[in-house]
Amino acid sequence: MSYQLNDKLASLVPYQPISGEYKIRLDANESYLNLADVFAERFANVVANLDFNRYPDPYAVKLCKIFAERYSLSPDFITASNGSDEIIGVIVASFLKKGETMLTLAPDFSMYGFYGEMYECKVETLNKEDDLTINADTVLQTLKNTKARLFIFSNPCNPTSLGLSREDVLKIIQGTDALVVVDEAYMDFWDQSILNTASEYDNVIVLKTCSKAMGAAAIRLGFAIANKTLTNAMSAAKSPYNVNALTQAVGEVILSDKTLLQRQVKDILNSKNALQASLCAMAKEKSDIIKVYNSCTNFIFIKMVDAKSVYAALLKKSIAVRCMGQYLRITAGSDEENKELLKELNHILQ
Amino acid sequence: MSYQLNDKLASLVPYQPISGEYKIRLDANESYLNLADVFAERFANVVANLDFNRYPDPYAVKLCKIFAERYSLSPDFITASNGSDEIIGVIVASFLKKGETMLTLAPDFSMYGFYGEMYECKVETLNKEDDLTINADTVLQTLKNTKARLFIFSNPCNPTSLGLSREDVLKIIQGTDALVVVDEAYMDFWDQSILNTASEYDNVIVLKTCSKAMGAAAIRLGFAIANKTLTNAMSAAKSPYNVNALTQAVGEVILSDKTLLQRQVKDILNSKNALQASLCAMAKEKSDIIKVYNSCTNFIFIKMVDAKSVYAALLKKSIAVRCMGQYLRITAGSDEENKELLKELNHILQ
Repeated sequence: MSYQLNDKLASLVPYQPISGEYKIRLDANESYLNLADVFAERFANVVANLDFNRYPDPYAVKLCKIFAERYSLSPDFITASNGSDEIIGVIVASFLKKGETMLTLAPDFSMYGFYGEMYECKVETLNKEDDLTINADTVLQTLKNTKARLFIFSNPCNPTSLGLSREDVLKIIQGTDALVVVDEAYMDFWDQSILNTASEYDNVIVLKTCSKAMGAAAIRLGFAIANKTLTNAMSAAKSPYNVNALTQAVGEVILSDKTLLQRQVKDILNSKNALQASLCAMAKEKSDIIKVYNSCTNFIFIKMVDAKSVYAALLKKSIAVRCMGQYLRITAGSDEENKELLKELNHILQ
Repeated sequence: MSYQLNDKLASLVPYQPISGEYKIRLDANESYLNLADVFAERFANVVANLDFNRYPDPYAVKLCKIFAERYSLSPDFITASNGSDEIIGVIVASFLKKGETMLTLAPDFSMYGFYGEMYECKVETLNKEDDLTINADTVLQTLKNTKARLFIFSNPCNPTSLGLSREDVLKIIQGTDALVVVDEAYMDFWDQSILNTASEYDNVIVLKTCSKAMGAAAIRLGFAIANKTLTNAMSAAKSPYNVNALTQAVGEVILSDKTLLQRQVKDILNSKNALQASLCAMAKEKSDIIKVYNSCTNFIFIKMVDAKSVYAALLKKSIAVRCMGQYLRITAGSDEENKELLKELNHILQ
């Protein structure tokens, strides 16, 4: 007898991170600051003292409490997860039933649609405006037209680096009875968060991650913030013991540092602003650069005449950025990394 | 406008691990040996040297290679996951389409059905024989009758502690064109593994975990072993970066120890055998104990006249075991823990 993969698996397009060894990595919107420089000893200490043979706290109570304190929230509204990815999967699988519609935007983080397809939802995609901004009224109209039960988007947006104002986000939330999932992975770099008001709505889940401004992509720690009803539902739908004890312990150390986030955000935004200014200056001289978008994040989104060739040429110089159709997405790195990138880019665009 | 949870979420029965502080924990089938006693320094060292700001290797290549060496397998056939839980979810969600049938057994690990319900599969449950054993022919007939596309079971079984022979497992695999998922979480304690032949079949996935004999429940590290086609499919269906860098680094240390597993298995089986002998002796004198099952695992399954009362009485003495209907499931602990348990149990059953 012979086993055949179903069409869902056969047609699956997996997320394709860039692999291989490159001198400079500006492709994954990571922080360029290594936390081990500050925390190595404390990390080593908490890890050495774990009960490795015991299952972790299934609800990561202490960790959620510390996260709540850091963002001035109630711990009752927090769910911890393995990066935002896990909880996105849980939300799509459990809050939607088969065949129900979820609305996504384009361009936006590709994994939203991935989970939608995986769990056999109907994924509707609304193209953003020509300038890549989001029109709240158009979103509301589309939610109505498509009868979507869930709307998920990143704010500020990965990959466009653009943000939607808090006012517009709340307008969408108030104007629909669909569940609105606002992925604020990059919101530490901007000031239009709805985090402190999320639990007042019965149809909002906000997602946060420690992978970006917090600088801890290695530990894959994310959080969902929502009112008690939605939090209870996520807690019931997630796998038990989902966040392991190593991650909980190290996450507790990182989130206990009261000024880490502001220190890192300051450094990273300095780097981003300098890189953006340099790229804008370069755009004035090089017609290969069509547009440098005004970034609310730790990366720059650039429209190119031939993004693919430039991407390949940078890779040859051992500099990894992301290529997305006619766009490049470049993470702000250290001063040295930015300098090297600009030098090579300048050279390539001669 | 008001948001309502769907019936799937509203009716969800989440996994309920025992919470609270107890002096003796014999409820979760954990190893009683803490790895930190041996590895603390090495764990601390690898953790202090991680690039915390960088995403982990999405495919955990080095970790899978070390796991493969430990079990004499090819690394091409290995997928790493957050405990077995994550990969069970991935398998059910992706290898089945909504409405397709999966077959489970009863009693068996409750999470199989949980994921089946979550992903809107039809979950058929075959009751085991009266003596809690599995009849391979009955399974094959039921797979045929129910048109199940997936059969998942634990071997040896959690919670019954009983095992199905390798011969019978292979008979099931060869006799069906459904996907057969064999959860060998406890197989390090027994000798009927099909691990070394799994990749020769096109319809088998074997699951392993570091949470039991390996003694590392804290890190939630599991593996799926299957042929290249099934491994590629799981790799595409899982979340990217699913196993974080902390877990990969610590898992590499544990799995690199060539004799850890046999050392721990020896100690744990000594404890289990002693506990089983004592419980069997007790059963001869106490009519409250109906049957002590012959365990292939690190825990003992006992049929009681009134399991619930005994469970509650033990809990009052700060000893946690699992109560499952008319059965108790008791993990083998250290000599002192076992002695304390036996003393209190003896007292309760006076």
